[in-house]
Amino acid sequence: MDNFTFYSPTFFAFGKDQEKEAGNLVKRFGGTKVLVHYGGGSVVRSGLLDRVKASLEAADVPYLVLGGVQPNPRSGLVYQGIELCRKEGVDFVLAVGGGRTIDSSKAIAAGTVYDGDFWDFYSGKLIEEALPVGTILTIAAAGSEGSPDSVITNEDGMFKRGATGDAIRPKFSILNPALTQTLPPYQTACGITDIIAHLYERYLTNTKDVEVTDRLIEALMMTMIHEGPRVIADPDCYEARANIMWAGMMAHNNSCGVGRTQDWTSHDIEHELSALYDCAHGAGLAVTLPAAYTYVMEHDVMRFAQVASRVWGCKMDFYHPEVTARAGIEALRNFLISIGMPKNFEELGAKKEDIPVLVKSLCYGNGREGSLSGFLTLSEEDCTKIYELMV
Amino acid sequence: MDNFTFYSPTFFAFGKDQEKEAGNLVKRFGGTKVLVHYGGGSVVRSGLLDRVKASLEAADVPYLVLGGVQPNPRSGLVYQGIELCRKEGVDFVLAVGGGRTIDSSKAIAAGTVYDGDFWDFYSGKLIEEALPVGTILTIAAAGSEGSPDSVITNEDGMFKRGATGDAIRPKFSILNPALTQTLPPYQTACGITDIIAHLYERYLTNTKDVEVTDRLIEALMMTMIHEGPRVIADPDCYEARANIMWAGMMAHNNSCGVGRTQDWTSHDIEHELSALYDCAHGAGLAVTLPAAYTYVMEHDVMRFAQVASRVWGCKMDFYHPEVTARAGIEALRNFLISIGMPKNFEELGAKKEDIPVLVKSLCYGNGREGSLSGFLTLSEEDCTKIYELMV
Repeated sequence: MDNFTFYSPTFFAFGKDQEKEAGNLVKRFGGTKVLVHYGGGSVVRSGLLDRVKASLEAADVPYLVLGGVQPNPRSGLVYQGIELCRKEGVDFVLAVGGGRTIDSSKAIAAGTVYDGDFWDFYSGKLIEEALPVGTILTIAAAGSEGSPDSVITNEDGMFKRGATGDAIRPKFSILNPALTQTLPPYQTACGITDIIAHLYERYLTNTKDVEVTDRLIEALMMTMIHEGPRVIADPDCYEARANIMWAGMMAHNNSCGVGRTQDWTSHDIEHELSALYDCAHGAGLAVTLPAAYTYVMEHDVMRFAQVASRVWGCKMDFYHPEVTARAGIEALRNFLISIGMPKNFEELGAKKEDIPVLVKSLCYGNGREGSLSGFLTLSEEDCTKIYELMV
Repeated sequence: MDNFTFYSPTFFAFGKDQEKEAGNLVKRFGGTKVLVHYGGGSVVRSGLLDRVKASLEAADVPYLVLGGVQPNPRSGLVYQGIELCRKEGVDFVLAVGGGRTIDSSKAIAAGTVYDGDFWDFYSGKLIEEALPVGTILTIAAAGSEGSPDSVITNEDGMFKRGATGDAIRPKFSILNPALTQTLPPYQTACGITDIIAHLYERYLTNTKDVEVTDRLIEALMMTMIHEGPRVIADPDCYEARANIMWAGMMAHNNSCGVGRTQDWTSHDIEHELSALYDCAHGAGLAVTLPAAYTYVMEHDVMRFAQVASRVWGCKMDFYHPEVTARAGIEALRNFLISIGMPKNFEELGAKKEDIPVLVKSLCYGNGREGSLSGFLTLSEEDCTKIYELMV
């Protein structure tokens, strides 16, 4: 196991009606003037925004609101939020929504107290200071409610980049599974796919002998495989929503990923898709994962055989472990299709002729110099072949 | 899933040589004068105490030392520590040792800032304020490095009681698996047993449909079953020590126990044994667990069949799930024996004729009124029968 540090000081309030605690929690964590940041109409239509406002009012905490976060959150709104926070003396950012809203809130929180352009953080600079952030989560997916990460799309060229830093870990996150019961099946499935991707990206390690984190990741994968189809079949199932919501947080606060190298190439490969086509991140991942894993499988056949056997229930072929490994990737593909995810470029709305554009942005964007590091170092040619496997 | 809150704001520095960070971490978390609290001679003999002192000196943090914590930590030393901290103006308690030392440190930290008798906290009062505590862990066992709990033995009658409160969660914990390589096999096995008990106590729930936490607990159990025999066979195995150390923390910081009722009756039943006979807590648990589970199994046969099948690899008998359930308890018993743990009263040094004394303290101590609540409510008669199963 590699040396590591782990720090997850987020306070989680989990369960029914917990959004009523928003005002008290903002106060507990030092907020005296709040920016309530949210996305589209569902937060408004469902009455959630009103309940959050009422909770802030009951706690005597003044607030401003800023809506309009788009599915792949844009830099433009972040600049707007930063300006607003500075002008109004906001000292706490409260995200009401999913990963996009939380990520946009984190960017605003970091940018408000930074002299330069907030995009510096999305170009490699560590976030060391930020306004405190709280979240009220409305979809189990990105894991941003317990992570120190944020992903934003730069409108000047439409490319997605990530930033990180313990300063943007939420001070508190309110996780009420009932808030996710109204999600359309497609969005629910996108969230499930994102969570599974976070688990695979941690599972694909080059560190040997990390049984405890292998087992924890497998536990969360099995939870998703059990609860995913259940919630697609019965969107109102509170118990399945609750299991998925805690699994989604645990999948990405890194308690199951410590002490081992990880592989974030699938996320990078996908980010080019959702940036160019504005498709849902989860949908892009559903097309990416089976292709990428088919391509990299030979780098460590036993790793893929282990997940196939332990998680997907494939019989181990001891003479031909690659058969088991491949069966596990097929099981993943079929699972994603079964919950309604796209399986190829066509269903995603992507185009084969764009592959050179995708590969160029992927391999040369974000300060990269022609390749992608992870489980396996991927050259331009490798990335091209992976995208071709998605066609 | 039941509503819950979860808050684990401990900073973990994990891996080789991390004790060198002690001074920096004390400073980071606000300590300006430290009580270094430890137990017996091994911390001194191994040179660990000197390395910790050197780290504090390098960080310009003044300190006092207080050694002598006994295996079942006593109230007398806690009073001594409190007096010392008050007299010397100590504002940070650094535990160097295992669960006993951490628990004693937590008691001192809470007692120093409390006007009354610190034992109030061990009689049911919630700990809401305490000096900050840091830990340098030398045995994977109690999980106290990431928990808000502490157990102390009152010398005035020799009984063990627990206290709790987020204020005594360590600010940081240094987990260096190499420090555990010198542990005698018996102590290592006691630690393994304690960790397994923490997992079973969370597994035995009356809350239905909690797949995510079931799976997480199972993951940690399987890790212990894999790594336990490996480390007993090869005490120097760093990788096995590392897997056990992270599993031990995760088993008890409650991330795998949230949203479900838990069962702490086995710990309560054991505490009477180690208080009366001063045996190791883990050894007492090894004798307690199979007896208690044999007794309560019929309350939920499918729960015991699930752990037997998923964790212990017992074949599910669909006609007779109780056969599978029983096979799982036998597998647990045989596992504990295989790592060198005692299997009955005789091997533990306990006496059948003391059972009435044990039962009385168990069922009427700590404010109880003749019974023990948990997975199943246990009467005096039930407790008597459980102790009798250990003979």
